[in-house]
Amino acid sequence: MGQQHEPSGQRWRQQCRRGEFTGPTSGIAPSLVQCNLVVLPDTYAYDFLRFCQLNPKPCPLLAMSAKPGDPTLTTLGADIDIRTDLPRYRLWHDGVLTTEVSDIRDHWRDDLVSFALGCSFSFEEALLSAGLEIRNISENVNVPMYKTHQPCHPAGVFEGDLVVSMRPFTPRDAIRAIQICSRFPQVHGAPIHFGDPAALGILDLAKPDYGDPVTLKAGEVPVFWACGVTPQAALEQAQLPFAITHAPGHMLITDLNNATLAAI
Amino acid sequence: MGQQHEPSGQRWRQQCRRGEFTGPTSGIAPSLVQCNLVVLPDTYAYDFLRFCQLNPKPCPLLAMSAKPGDPTLTTLGADIDIRTDLPRYRLWHDGVLTTEVSDIRDHWRDDLVSFALGCSFSFEEALLSAGLEIRNISENVNVPMYKTHQPCHPAGVFEGDLVVSMRPFTPRDAIRAIQICSRFPQVHGAPIHFGDPAALGILDLAKPDYGDPVTLKAGEVPVFWACGVTPQAALEQAQLPFAITHAPGHMLITDLNNATLAAI
Repeated sequence: MGQQHEPSGQRWRQQCRRGEFTGPTSGIAPSLVQCNLVVLPDTYAYDFLRFCQLNPKPCPLLAMSAKPGDPTLTTLGADIDIRTDLPRYRLWHDGVLTTEVSDIRDHWRDDLVSFALGCSFSFEEALLSAGLEIRNISENVNVPMYKTHQPCHPAGVFEGDLVVSMRPFTPRDAIRAIQICSRFPQVHGAPIHFGDPAALGILDLAKPDYGDPVTLKAGEVPVFWACGVTPQAALEQAQLPFAITHAPGHMLITDLNNATLAAI
Repeated sequence: MGQQHEPSGQRWRQQCRRGEFTGPTSGIAPSLVQCNLVVLPDTYAYDFLRFCQLNPKPCPLLAMSAKPGDPTLTTLGADIDIRTDLPRYRLWHDGVLTTEVSDIRDHWRDDLVSFALGCSFSFEEALLSAGLEIRNISENVNVPMYKTHQPCHPAGVFEGDLVVSMRPFTPRDAIRAIQICSRFPQVHGAPIHFGDPAALGILDLAKPDYGDPVTLKAGEVPVFWACGVTPQAALEQAQLPFAITHAPGHMLITDLNNATLAAI
């Protein structure tokens, strides 16, 4: 009956909505844009929006609620209900992670504002399509992420140091990766550093602050990208009375193709 | 009387033609495309054209003679006479440099074919415009160039190893330089390597094979570009009975703006 087509973002979201899919979304619908989610009381929304505007590499904002309490994000998918359509969420009280749930309808409030931020899965797909090997994918682990000593631009209650993800490449492949990722400024864009980890304040690549270590082979250099964990770290530090995020690796699957984000 | 305008390529070429200008062209008319020149007997033109096609990063061909013996290159400048319009030329016999002259009318033959190749001055202007420091310019020396152990794709009598130029940058500036130079594939394009010189077969950065050494500061990495000396090295190795090139640093100044070469 012809070629198989990749299930649409809508189909995956409906599985989440029905509680049938609660797993990590890495490798699922790889051609579709996936998003980090941050949900905050309206009173903090302006500060967070400014934090994204000031720090676009770690916080590339793709969409936000049209008004407080509105659970839709129609530019990412006509039917999106942010309360049910992710596989897993984290609830935060006073900056502390309190629980993980697969549905936030019971926790929804009329003052909540949702922010959907671009995610590295989109540029990883572009790198794989170009024939590059991505070590965390080859080794089937989470990408290693590190806190740096490089402060973000603060905005109101939000501040903190940049968090980076790291992928090893030969210099030749690193140059290619820089070219490819430069086309995708809305999903972290070009790397921010390569080579010496100490220049970012990273003491030991074998001990990431988040995710898992990966092998660095002879002749390879570590290449560092601004990471979507940065806003979560700023959120923790701000100790907001209440916030909701996606659970790590359990992203919002949208209807947008990664290719639609290419700047050039 | 209004703003001063940069003298046109035509004006500089006329000064060369009258023998009034015989110096190096670095820094002259920096917004205009300058070219490496290779002039060969027709019998070798097909091989050389294939060599350029197979090795576009070191040999980015911008224009060639419409027919043997024709001294014009009208796509680069309506009035160009390749026999008089460069400040300085080199004459080669059996692969050996025999003399330098400022005019090749006495050596012109009906079977000669001219090739104009893109030059690093164009991307250096783009890097300077972006606020990057170029060490060889700051230190007022020729860019350091190195023979590598990386063979070019051979074509007929033409073969040899890639020659690279090197400019030091911090990783942050190197990433920016990769982005900027990627826009200019016709003037060597993106770097081909950064970091460890030994990976290219370069033993000592302080001892370039051509040009001058430059300072490498703490926290900087050497960044390597394919270099227009590569075809000259292949030309020497081929030991052609007769050939003419520009003298190093004494380029053809065209009427094209560097910006017209930007791919994106």
